[in-house]
Amino acid sequence: MVQITTALNERPAHAPRGQRIPVAVLGATGSVGQRFVQLLEHHPWFRLHEAVASERSAGKSYREAAGWKLDTILPDEAGNLRVKELGADLESRLVFSGLDSSVAGEAEELYAGRGCVVVSNSKNHRMGDDVPLLIPELNADHVAAIDQQRRRRGGRGYIVTNPNCSTIGLAMAIAPIERLYGIDQLHVSTMQAISGAGYAGVSSFAILDNVIPYISGEEDKVETEPRKILGHWDGSRFVPAEMRISAQTNRVPTIDGHLMTISLSLRKHDANFLERIREAIETFIGEPQKIGLPSAPRRPLHYIDEPDRPQTRLDRDREHGMAVSVGRLRPCPLLDLRMVALVHNTIRGAAGAAILNAELLEAKGLL
Amino acid sequence: MVQITTALNERPAHAPRGQRIPVAVLGATGSVGQRFVQLLEHHPWFRLHEAVASERSAGKSYREAAGWKLDTILPDEAGNLRVKELGADLESRLVFSGLDSSVAGEAEELYAGRGCVVVSNSKNHRMGDDVPLLIPELNADHVAAIDQQRRRRGGRGYIVTNPNCSTIGLAMAIAPIERLYGIDQLHVSTMQAISGAGYAGVSSFAILDNVIPYISGEEDKVETEPRKILGHWDGSRFVPAEMRISAQTNRVPTIDGHLMTISLSLRKHDANFLERIREAIETFIGEPQKIGLPSAPRRPLHYIDEPDRPQTRLDRDREHGMAVSVGRLRPCPLLDLRMVALVHNTIRGAAGAAILNAELLEAKGLL
Amino acid sequence: MVQITTALNERPAHAPRGQRIPVAVLGATGSVGQRFVQLLEHHPWFRLHEAVASERSAGKSYREAAGWKLDTILPDEAGNLRVKELGADLESRLVFSGLDSSVAGEAEELYAGRGCVVVSNSKNHRMGDDVPLLIPELNADHVAAIDQQRRRRGGRGYIVTNPNCSTIGLAMAIAPIERLYGIDQLHVSTMQAISGAGYAGVSSFAILDNVIPYISGEEDKVETEPRKILGHWDGSRFVPAEMRISAQTNRVPTIDGHLMTISLSLRKHDANFLERIREAIETFIGEPQKIGLPSAPRRPLHYIDEPDRPQTRLDRDREHGMAVSVGRLRPCPLLDLRMVALVHNTIRGAAGAAILNAELLEAKGLL
Amino acid sequence: MVQITTALNERPAHAPRGQRIPVAVLGATGSVGQRFVQLLEHHPWFRLHEAVASERSAGKSYREAAGWKLDTILPDEAGNLRVKELGADLESRLVFSGLDSSVAGEAEELYAGRGCVVVSNSKNHRMGDDVPLLIPELNADHVAAIDQQRRRRGGRGYIVTNPNCSTIGLAMAIAPIERLYGIDQLHVSTMQAISGAGYAGVSSFAILDNVIPYISGEEDKVETEPRKILGHWDGSRFVPAEMRISAQTNRVPTIDGHLMTISLSLRKHDANFLERIREAIETFIGEPQKIGLPSAPRRPLHYIDEPDRPQTRLDRDREHGMAVSVGRLRPCPLLDLRMVALVHNTIRGAAGAAILNAELLEAKGLL
Repeated sequence: MVQITTALNERPAHAPRGQRIPVAVLGATGSVGQRFVQLLEHHPWFRLHEAVASERSAGKSYREAAGWKLDTILPDEAGNLRVKELGADLESRLVFSGLDSSVAGEAEELYAGRGCVVVSNSKNHRMGDDVPLLIPELNADHVAAIDQQRRRRGGRGYIVTNPNCSTIGLAMAIAPIERLYGIDQLHVSTMQAISGAGYAGVSSFAILDNVIPYISGEEDKVETEPRKILGHWDGSRFVPAEMRISAQTNRVPTIDGHLMTISLSLRKHDANFLERIREAIETFIGEPQKIGLPSAPRRPLHYIDEPDRPQTRLDRDREHGMAVSVGRLRPCPLLDLRMVALVHNTIRGAAGAAILNAELLEAKGLL
Repeated sequence: MVQITTALNERPAHAPRGQRIPVAVLGATGSVGQRFVQLLEHHPWFRLHEAVASERSAGKSYREAAGWKLDTILPDEAGNLRVKELGADLESRLVFSGLDSSVAGEAEELYAGRGCVVVSNSKNHRMGDDVPLLIPELNADHVAAIDQQRRRRGGRGYIVTNPNCSTIGLAMAIAPIERLYGIDQLHVSTMQAISGAGYAGVSSFAILDNVIPYISGEEDKVETEPRKILGHWDGSRFVPAEMRISAQTNRVPTIDGHLMTISLSLRKHDANFLERIREAIETFIGEPQKIGLPSAPRRPLHYIDEPDRPQTRLDRDREHGMAVSVGRLRPCPLLDLRMVALVHNTIRGAAGAAILNAELLEAKGLL
Repeated sequence: MVQITTALNERPAHAPRGQRIPVAVLGATGSVGQRFVQLLEHHPWFRLHEAVASERSAGKSYREAAGWKLDTILPDEAGNLRVKELGADLESRLVFSGLDSSVAGEAEELYAGRGCVVVSNSKNHRMGDDVPLLIPELNADHVAAIDQQRRRRGGRGYIVTNPNCSTIGLAMAIAPIERLYGIDQLHVSTMQAISGAGYAGVSSFAILDNVIPYISGEEDKVETEPRKILGHWDGSRFVPAEMRISAQTNRVPTIDGHLMTISLSLRKHDANFLERIREAIETFIGEPQKIGLPSAPRRPLHYIDEPDRPQTRLDRDREHGMAVSVGRLRPCPLLDLRMVALVHNTIRGAAGAAILNAELLEAKGLL
Repeated sequence: MVQITTALNERPAHAPRGQRIPVAVLGATGSVGQRFVQLLEHHPWFRLHEAVASERSAGKSYREAAGWKLDTILPDEAGNLRVKELGADLESRLVFSGLDSSVAGEAEELYAGRGCVVVSNSKNHRMGDDVPLLIPELNADHVAAIDQQRRRRGGRGYIVTNPNCSTIGLAMAIAPIERLYGIDQLHVSTMQAISGAGYAGVSSFAILDNVIPYISGEEDKVETEPRKILGHWDGSRFVPAEMRISAQTNRVPTIDGHLMTISLSLRKHDANFLERIREAIETFIGEPQKIGLPSAPRRPLHYIDEPDRPQTRLDRDREHGMAVSVGRLRPCPLLDLRMVALVHNTIRGAAGAAILNAELLEAKGLL
């Protein structure tokens, strides 16, 4: 029996429930926005206070405007919210953004300028010079850039972002390898679910019994973002990791979950690199595990032994969709090793990623 | 974030956890068997003690024999069980059967003869003269037949069964109508998920981009079983309800969830029958809700207002898959009313149904 | 090996190829419009001369405007056409309409008023008092209403329509039964492919692993249109057939092909009605077969013996998608008989139906 | 309207229709076997004379034994054949093998030993020292090895094979590149349809809404076979091409068509290599086109300009499924270039490939 809950661990939370922080969700009626609303329902630190969407939805109840499309029941508290128009003054200081990139750039600037902490899933500011592109398990220290960003803006507001959904799966899967040996070259070919394109993004006529070997702008993101994530902040700028990536991205008829095949070469080697890498994957933890963030998976990476795993439908929900699954670690005839990775694209790869980012900011006193 | 748990309500359980009843699962490696194992993982009253399967699996670990195919992680406790061969002596007195009908008839007789309480999902004994065909919300009083069955067998063992997966959805959806007005005639056309046929039952080549308007033996079950379920035990035999049913059953490319369109005529009428029926559906509860069985949904029937609901993927998991969803209640140009119903075929329609049956037996002191 | 061609029979055509009639397609870039373009490529009587679409497409090449979505190669002759704007003066006297119903009503009136013969797939004028709702095998004599329509309009132009895609399958499948015995009551439950909703009509997020038990406006069409089709023109008006229909319509994840389960009662009976009906289905032919229309299937109805047929993917392409398949003819516990029918919704159920209508008009000297 | 025919070109055939060569199909009831039967229906040179299958089918009519699963109508001539048992004496000298690899090795040896020309789609003899692994457009001259094979066997019989379905798509797509510049390293990641695994090969429960990143034995074939195909016969042995390949193979929920992403490095370069390669793909023809074999596509490779093509469903049927589609030729950040290729796995990648091989043998006087 499948019980849908938010991914709350049972460890003591840092913030008492009675004082949950009110938050706003920008783009609340879209596919990422609905995931935000779903994941916030039982969140111990945050409370959905404002739903913000386009002019077309403004003034309606969230229930009416959203046409709820997830397989859980829309909570009444959210359903009864009156949707505010994008650009309106907000009462929440913490703002999640699931906006479409056509409007996210300007709107997020606007709210950061008004002093809000904008935790965005949109692509617009990801590569910004002083904008952290966060995966808390990998680069929690990138929040150091916030200071510089605040100084630039002249206020308390700022923007942090999470990476592209495929990038998150890739970057998490290879992070232990990058740390152990350094990665030189990497080929990745993705098989991405349709939910990544939003509710109306992929028509059923386009994708049933089909594969589309193209996703607009996706390959560039997957080739670029991991270098910033796995690089470091040197006090004044982000220094990217040196790895070079070739990405080919494909849309397949699955609902949730981006699966990818990876082949890569290392900068250093030793005799037992496959064994050591596997162990590093299995034991990998990061800041969210150490400080006990409520949405953090116990183990961010699940290595699965069976030769035909991970599989999209069977493994995407591990740790409430917050763990990345890895399998088929084996030698490559051309480079050093090959592997398969899987990420739940709308949870770990989008709304869940942003919420974990906000939890990190709260735990570090940055809200 | 999706958390998979057994459907345990938070009400106090009747049996303390420290003394969980050991149970065996027959056919434990099949699709219904794996659901049994999954649902028993955190069960407050029952504890998986023995996994039983065919000769081919016997002696292997359950992990090896099952090739676990569900989207949750196989619990180690179950995975490490040594599979016993069908026919072997069992230590458990409570036996769940998810056996294929080709072997279920004989095997279930065998274990009932040895004194076991056999709670079966198989079709073989459903129409037996003294075998309850149970849906605890509808006909908990049919357990009265157990006495007679025990006398026939000359021991403490007996068999109870749950209905066919589609029958359960249909019978639950129409039960409040039958009670209010009596049902005369009923047409039902089903759209059934592929999991109903077992893991290897429907090849992907057969069903992708396809509908198959035939499921062997299914129409007969759906036309026959509801009459027994909605009938009564008169002290010596089951007297079937008088309704007549025409069922057309179809396989569609969905994973879980049987959706059905229904049109029916009533024996009695009044001016507000549609409103009264709707209210009866919304307020319907039965024995499991009254006595607080751990797997019981709070509300066995969910009426959904939206004109395009219930939908298979969006609504099958309501109340951990134990609630039946109903919608589109409206007049019929030919009969009295039409409606749509949905049941999770491998939870409420199979393993979950059997577990609820066993809980009823335990609560009534029949184990 | 699958060769895509227009459904040209090998019989001598009535019109020599050298003088193919120039035709326009309204709504040429949509899903029905693209089927028109595909089916006209090798048509012996008609030649695509003008592609008409909305302002957004006007002025572009058809190739650019259409973003061709069918699994055959867009013919260069069509691809290079310059798209005209809806409302523009046309050179063709024969106009096919695949317009969306939001604009079809007015636009078709406009062109009929200008003297064009408008052969429409849209719903707007189907129930018009003097507008034939044609299935040439069933009611070719309904063209008699054209005279009256022309008189009303005061010109040579007029509109004829083809039925809704599901209606066509239903009406064709039951026509031999209606003729033999008369039909009293009929229940139908459909399982409809996503192409019926147009290219962008059903998002993949909405339908993958799902069934939607609702299609806006569809049930009313299926309950109403067959009565007009199977009725007669009495010289001044259409007298509908007396049958009563209850339709429940569902969307399933298939690409093309509407499958439906049917249960019906007869007005008259005899001992061998099932055998006689089956024979009538197998031998059924109509006007298009008698006069050899180029798009006519040799046998409009294919009865398939296997108990699990027709199936959507396996049978939708029979006779190039122009034959309706029927199977599972058997008694009904409630009414007289049950059966399953299948129609290719975008060929026999839409563009192919309209082209066959136009062929009938040409053969009868009405163009 | 979709007309299903064999892929017969209209050019004069080499063999008059009145004298079609009788052929046998081994494994005639399986998925590849049924494609053989379908493609042979209207073949101008070959006539299905014997259907051979396992003991279970032997003695039955082909109609009964096959349970025809393709979306065309089983021809009566084939349906009425009496199935012979594998191992029985055959009257045909030309034998197509679609046998499962568990029995193909021995059975094909048997019939070759009896003097038959065995044209096999099975993997067993593909890498044999004197067995041609043929793609007639690429290595028609490999038939030179037949002489040596016949000498070894001491009779007129011999075996030729076609490659694995994915290999065929890959090898054809890269052949013009190998000829122009030589290929050094190549990464390929496939997204393969379920029909490649046979009718019962992939259960729907395993693949609906899922991707499986593993196909048993497939990666090894794709890494090995192209080297033999693109190598040469030096008069006494096959000298493989020097390229090195890394293949990752995945199963996706599509019915027919294997799509693959490719990244490769060249042995030589020049300034315009991308333009020259594209031109070489577009103008590529081979022996079957030159001598006009009946199943040969006019152009073996179709280059498609649109940035999101080829797509599995839209492009797999080009030239009756006998053309391989290529697109997205572009630079690679790591190697020299990237591209996407698509092959119809059960036509060009299996039965159609074998039939084209047999046509080559007939045209060269080797039958």
